[in-house]
Amino acid sequence: MGDWVALDIGGANIKLADGLGFAQSFAFPLWKRPKQLGSELARILDHAPADHVAVTMTGELADCFPSKAEGVRSILLAVKAAAGGRRTRVYLSSGQWVTTDAAIARWRWAAASNWHALARFCGRFAPNGYGLLIDVGSTTTDLIPLRDGRPANAGRTDTERLASGELVYTGVERSPLCALLSSANYRGRRCRIAQELFATTRDAYLVLGESAEDSDDLTTADGRPATIEDARRRLGRMLCADAGEFGPADAESLAREVAQAQLKMLHEAAQEVMARLTHPIATITISGHGQHLARPLVDRLGVDAEVIRLSGRLGPNVSRCAPAHALAVLARESE
Amino acid sequence: MGDWVALDIGGANIKLADGLGFAQSFAFPLWKRPKQLGSELARILDHAPADHVAVTMTGELADCFPSKAEGVRSILLAVKAAAGGRRTRVYLSSGQWVTTDAAIARWRWAAASNWHALARFCGRFAPNGYGLLIDVGSTTTDLIPLRDGRPANAGRTDTERLASGELVYTGVERSPLCALLSSANYRGRRCRIAQELFATTRDAYLVLGESAEDSDDLTTADGRPATIEDARRRLGRMLCADAGEFGPADAESLAREVAQAQLKMLHEAAQEVMARLTHPIATITISGHGQHLARPLVDRLGVDAEVIRLSGRLGPNVSRCAPAHALAVLARESE
Repeated sequence: MGDWVALDIGGANIKLADGLGFAQSFAFPLWKRPKQLGSELARILDHAPADHVAVTMTGELADCFPSKAEGVRSILLAVKAAAGGRRTRVYLSSGQWVTTDAAIARWRWAAASNWHALARFCGRFAPNGYGLLIDVGSTTTDLIPLRDGRPANAGRTDTERLASGELVYTGVERSPLCALLSSANYRGRRCRIAQELFATTRDAYLVLGESAEDSDDLTTADGRPATIEDARRRLGRMLCADAGEFGPADAESLAREVAQAQLKMLHEAAQEVMARLTHPIATITISGHGQHLARPLVDRLGVDAEVIRLSGRLGPNVSRCAPAHALAVLARESE
Repeated sequence: MGDWVALDIGGANIKLADGLGFAQSFAFPLWKRPKQLGSELARILDHAPADHVAVTMTGELADCFPSKAEGVRSILLAVKAAAGGRRTRVYLSSGQWVTTDAAIARWRWAAASNWHALARFCGRFAPNGYGLLIDVGSTTTDLIPLRDGRPANAGRTDTERLASGELVYTGVERSPLCALLSSANYRGRRCRIAQELFATTRDAYLVLGESAEDSDDLTTADGRPATIEDARRRLGRMLCADAGEFGPADAESLAREVAQAQLKMLHEAAQEVMARLTHPIATITISGHGQHLARPLVDRLGVDAEVIRLSGRLGPNVSRCAPAHALAVLARESE
C-alpha cells in the first residue's frame, strides 16, 4: 500500500487532500484556461507527494467543453499527463474505481461523481438504518439518502438527480436572487424584481450576518467587494433602487425573503427525497459552506435524528475540501 | 427653429435619431468605459449635424456608477462636453424639458426617462380615451397606460413602476431562464432547473424560431454564438444535460415553457395596470424587439381595441431606435 492523494477537479477550484489531515484548495478558472489544466495539476500535485492519485470531478460541466464526454476526456488526459508515472484511479458515481482510460470510456459515470464519494464517506457516521447527507454548497445542494452506511440515491447523473430532488441547483453564494424570488415586499407593497444577475444569495447572507465580509473578494455579481455595504447596493438594484431608495432595513427585509425562499425550496426537495425511504431517518450529516441554512432545514424537517456536523468531525480546513478528503480516505480503504 | 437630434443613452447602446427618418444605434458598453462616454458621444453626434441636442437615458443604472445621481451627473457632463456649443435639453419623466445643469439637480426625473418620451410620442395614435403602450424589449417591458394621448402612468421612478406593474424587468433576449422557471418538464418528469446564468430568453426564442440566428452575435450566456444549435446546448445546461440527454424536442419543450411563463407574467402585470383605469382601452400600441410576445399578450388580454404596430408606422430601422426618434419629434414639437 502506497500513499494516496485525491484531486477534486471543479470548474473554479481544484481541491487536494491526502485523507490524513492535509487538504488545500487552489483557485483555477478551468472554463477560462482548459489547456493549462495539465500544468496546473502537476504544480498542485507537488504539494503532496504520493505514489497514487485518486480523482473525482465536476469540472466537465464548464463552459469550455462542448459536451460532458469531451469534458471528462480533456480533464482525465490532463490528469494522466500531470500524474506522470503515478498510479491513477478515477472514482465513478457507481462507487467503482477505474483507470483513467476506462473512466474516459465510462464518462457518464466519471462525470460529477464527487457527491457520491462524499456520501459514501459520510456513511460511516450512519452505519445502520437510514441517514441523510445535507451538503449545502456555494452553488448547489446535495440531499443524499444513506442506507446502512451506503448512498441510497435514486438518481445518478446530475439530470436524474435534479429530477429526484437529490441535487438542488441552489447554494449560499452564487445563486442569482431572481431565481429565488419573482417579487419582494418593498415598503408595504409587493414589487416584481429585476430578472437580471444584479445580486446573488451571498449578498443576502452577508446582510443577514451569515456570510463573512471579505473586501478582497470580488467574485460578486458586479465585481465589487463582498462587503455588507456593497451587498446592500446590489440587493437594491434588484428593485432598480439606489441607496437613497433602499436603506439597511429594506436590504434586511429582502435578504430574509431570499433565505426563506431558499429554505422552502430545500425543504420541498428534502421531503421528496425522504418520501422514497421506507423507514425514518436516524442520522443527518450536514456539511458545506451553507451550514447556516442546513440547521434551520433540519429543524423544519422535524425528524427525530442525530445531527452530525462534518466540520466538527473533520475540522474547518479539511471540511472545506470534504469530497477530496473523502476520496483519499476511500481510496486508501479500497486497497 | 433649428435642427434637432436626440440621444438615448443606455448601458450597452447609444441611439441617435433626428425624428425625420434618420436613426442609428451604436454599441457602447458604458459600464466598461464610462470615462470614454464624452468622446464617444462627440463621435456619434458627428453622424447627424444639428444645432440642438435632446437627451434621454437609462445608462445611469450601469454598474460603473455608485448611484443614480452620480450616473445622471456623469452622463450629462459627458453630453455637455460632447455637445460643445449646441443647445442641449434633457427630457424628464415629468414630460418637462430642462437644461443639463437643471437635469443634474433633478436627477431623479432625468433618470430612466426614455419610456415616458416613447409613451408620450405614442399618444398621437390614441388621442382620445384610454390606450396602452406595450413595449417588449430585450431586457425589460413597459406597459404604459395612455389617456387622451398622454401617459397616464401610476409610477414614475423605475422602482415605483416595478411596484405598479408598468415596468416588468423581463425581456425577450437577456432575461435569465432561471428567473422565469423554477422547474421544467423533462421527459415526463418535473425537474428543478439550475439557478445559474446558463441560458437566457433569447435561447428559448431562437429555438422557437421567433428570434433570428446570428452566428456573429456572442452576447449570450456563455459567449458562444446566437444560433439554434448553441441555444439548444445552453437550454440543456439548465437541466445539467448535454446533447446526448437533451435533444431538439427537449429544447422545444423547455422553450415553450419559458415563453408561457413570460407571457403569464406580462399578462398579470398588464391586468394590474388596466385595473386602475376607469374605462376600457380603445387602442393598444405595440413596439420593441419582442413584438412576437406582444401579439399573444394582446390576444390573452381579450380587449376589443385597435392594435397599432409601431414598426408598421415608423419602419423597421427607425422603430429599433423608437425612444430616440420619439424624443426628437417631441423636441421639435416643443418649440
